Amino acid sequence: MEINNILITGNLANDIKKVIDPEQYPQTFRFIEEKSVTSKDLQWADGYVAFKPTTNFEFFDIKWVHSLGAGVDGFLFGNKWKEDVLLTRTICSFGQRISQYCLSYYLKDLQEHDSFREKESHKQWQPVTPKLIKNQKALVYGTGEIGQEIAKLFSSLGIEVYGVSLSGSQKPHFSKVYSISTETEILSEVDVVINTLPLTKETDKLFGKDLFNYMNHAIFINVGRGSSVVESDLIDALQNNTIRLAVLDVFKEEPLPVDHRFWELENVRITPHISAVTTVEEAVDCFLETLNKLKDKSVLKNKVDTSLGY
Amino acid sequence: MEINNILITGNLANDIKKVIDPEQYPQTFRFIEEKSVTSKDLQWADGYVAFKPTTNFEFFDIKWVHSLGAGVDGFLFGNKWKEDVLLTRTICSFGQRISQYCLSYYLKDLQEHDSFREKESHKQWQPVTPKLIKNQKALVYGTGEIGQEIAKLFSSLGIEVYGVSLSGSQKPHFSKVYSISTETEILSEVDVVINTLPLTKETDKLFGKDLFNYMNHAIFINVGRGSSVVESDLIDALQNNTIRLAVLDVFKEEPLPVDHRFWELENVRITPHISAVTTVEEAVDCFLETLNKLKDKSVLKNKVDTSLGY
Repeated sequence: MEINNILITGNLANDIKKVIDPEQYPQTFRFIEEKSVTSKDLQWADGYVAFKPTTNFEFFDIKWVHSLGAGVDGFLFGNKWKEDVLLTRTICSFGQRISQYCLSYYLKDLQEHDSFREKESHKQWQPVTPKLIKNQKALVYGTGEIGQEIAKLFSSLGIEVYGVSLSGSQKPHFSKVYSISTETEILSEVDVVINTLPLTKETDKLFGKDLFNYMNHAIFINVGRGSSVVESDLIDALQNNTIRLAVLDVFKEEPLPVDHRFWELENVRITPHISAVTTVEEAVDCFLETLNKLKDKSVLKNKVDTSLGY
Repeated sequence: MEINNILITGNLANDIKKVIDPEQYPQTFRFIEEKSVTSKDLQWADGYVAFKPTTNFEFFDIKWVHSLGAGVDGFLFGNKWKEDVLLTRTICSFGQRISQYCLSYYLKDLQEHDSFREKESHKQWQPVTPKLIKNQKALVYGTGEIGQEIAKLFSSLGIEVYGVSLSGSQKPHFSKVYSISTETEILSEVDVVINTLPLTKETDKLFGKDLFNYMNHAIFINVGRGSSVVESDLIDALQNNTIRLAVLDVFKEEPLPVDHRFWELENVRITPHISAVTTVEEAVDCFLETLNKLKDKSVLKNKVDTSLGY
C-alpha cells in the first residue's frame, strides 16, 4: 500500500514529532493537536494516526488508520467503518505491562500489604500469614495477546489459569478455555477474575449481576474496557461480597467523575487507565514498523478485523 | 539414628499436638509450652523440636535437634554447639514464600501503588506510567535455597539477577555470583538489593555504611536477619537517599520496639517477620519427613553444618 500524506494527531502528536525525522521518510507528515485538525487536513491525508477519530473526522481519501492504543473501540464501537480502509493498532509491550499490573495487585492482596500498612501506621506488630500464589485459580476473559501474556506469567507461578473467549478455542498457557457463557461452571471456584476483552457489541455490559452472582468472594480486575461492566451491578456485588475487591483501571467515563460511587468504596482500587500506557518510544516503534511493513507488503500482525472489532 | 523420646516445645507445640497421632509412631512425644519445660523433660528427651532452645536448655542426652524455623541462629549464634548432636532445620516452602514477598513489594514500587492510592484518596485522576520489570537489576545476598528461589522467579520475569555468597560459586538462575566484598563493583547499578543471609559471625553487621554508600537510590529488602544490618547506618542511608525504600521483615529486636525510629520513616515498610512463616502443616510435614529419614538413614537435605551456621 502506498501512503504519502500522514496526519498524526492526539495527545502524543507533539512527542512523536520530536522523535521522527521527516527527512528519513519519503512521506510527508503533519503533526497537529486534536482540536486544530481541519477538514482540509483530513482531505489531504491518506494515513491517519491517533488514539481515536477527531470530532470532525471523515474518511475522505484516508486508506490507512493506525491506532496509537491497543483498543480500537474509539474508532469502531458505535461507528460505521469504511470497508476498504485498513485499520492497524499498537501492540508492543501491552501484554507485559498489563500482566505485571494484574500480578502486582494480586500479590498485594495475597501478601496483605494493606493490612500490614495499617498496622504499621499504629506501630502494631501483629503477624498474619501471607497466602502463597501456588494453586490459586484465575479466570481470564480474552485469550488474545494480552490474555495469553497474563496466562503465561500466572501459570509460571503455579496458578491454574482458565480462559474465556467467543470461540472457546484452546490457547497456550491456559488449563482450559471456555466459550463465552459456559465459563459459569468454573466462576464460583476462581480466586481472581480478569477482564481483558475489547469493547464490542458482544462485550458491552457483559459483566453484570448474572455473572457476578456466580462469583464467590473473588477479586475482579478490569483492564479491558469500562463499558463492559454494569457499574451499578458491580457496586452491589462489592457490597454483598460476592466480589471481595475490585481493581479497576478502566471506566465507562474517563476520567472517573469525582462524584462516582467507586471513589467511596473501601474495596475498590482505582488507577487512571495506566495498565497499558502507550509510551512515546513504543508508539513510534510500532507505528514505524507498521509503516515499513505496508511498504514491503509484509504480513501485519496488528491488523484489526473491523467486523470483529479487535 | 534411633530416636525414642521427642520433646516438642515453643508456640507451635499445641498446634502440632493436634495433628500428630502418637499411636502411629514408635516414639513417645511430649508437647510442652516453652516456659513449662523442666530440666527433667530435657533429661528425658533424645530429640528436641522447637524454634529455639528454652532458657534452661541443656543437651543432656539429646542427640537430635530439629529447628521449626529456617534460621538456626537461635541455636547457634553466640552459643556453643555440642559436636555430636545432629541439627536439622525446616525448609519446605520458605523459598516460594520469601520470593513472592520480595516480588510483591518490588512490583508495588514499580507499579506506583502508593502514589495511586494517595491520589485515589483525594479522588484525583493523574496518570503516571508504571515501570516494567524487564531489564531491572537485582542483587541477592545468599545463594542457598532461598536466594536461588528468588533468582529463579526474578530471572523468569526478565530481571538480571546477581548473587553474593561467601564462596562466590556460580549457581543456577544468577547471571553472576560474586564472592562477598567483590560485589561492590555492581552495587551502584542495581535497582534492588535483597538480604537472605543467615546470621553468622561473617554476616553480623554486614550491611553498614560501607555497603550502603555504594548504593544508588536502590530498594533494600531484608528477609534474612535483623542483626546483619547496622540500623543507624540504614537510617542515614534512607535519609540521604542512597537507599530509596527499605522493606524490612526482620529486626535486631523483635517485636520492633514502639519507640524505634523505623516506625517514623516514610520510606520504610515494616512487616512483622512474616515473609517465611512456618505454617503448622508445613512444620509437621518437614518434621515427620526428617524423622522418617533418620529412621531410614536417608540423606538429609536439611542438615545444618553447625560450623558454618546454615
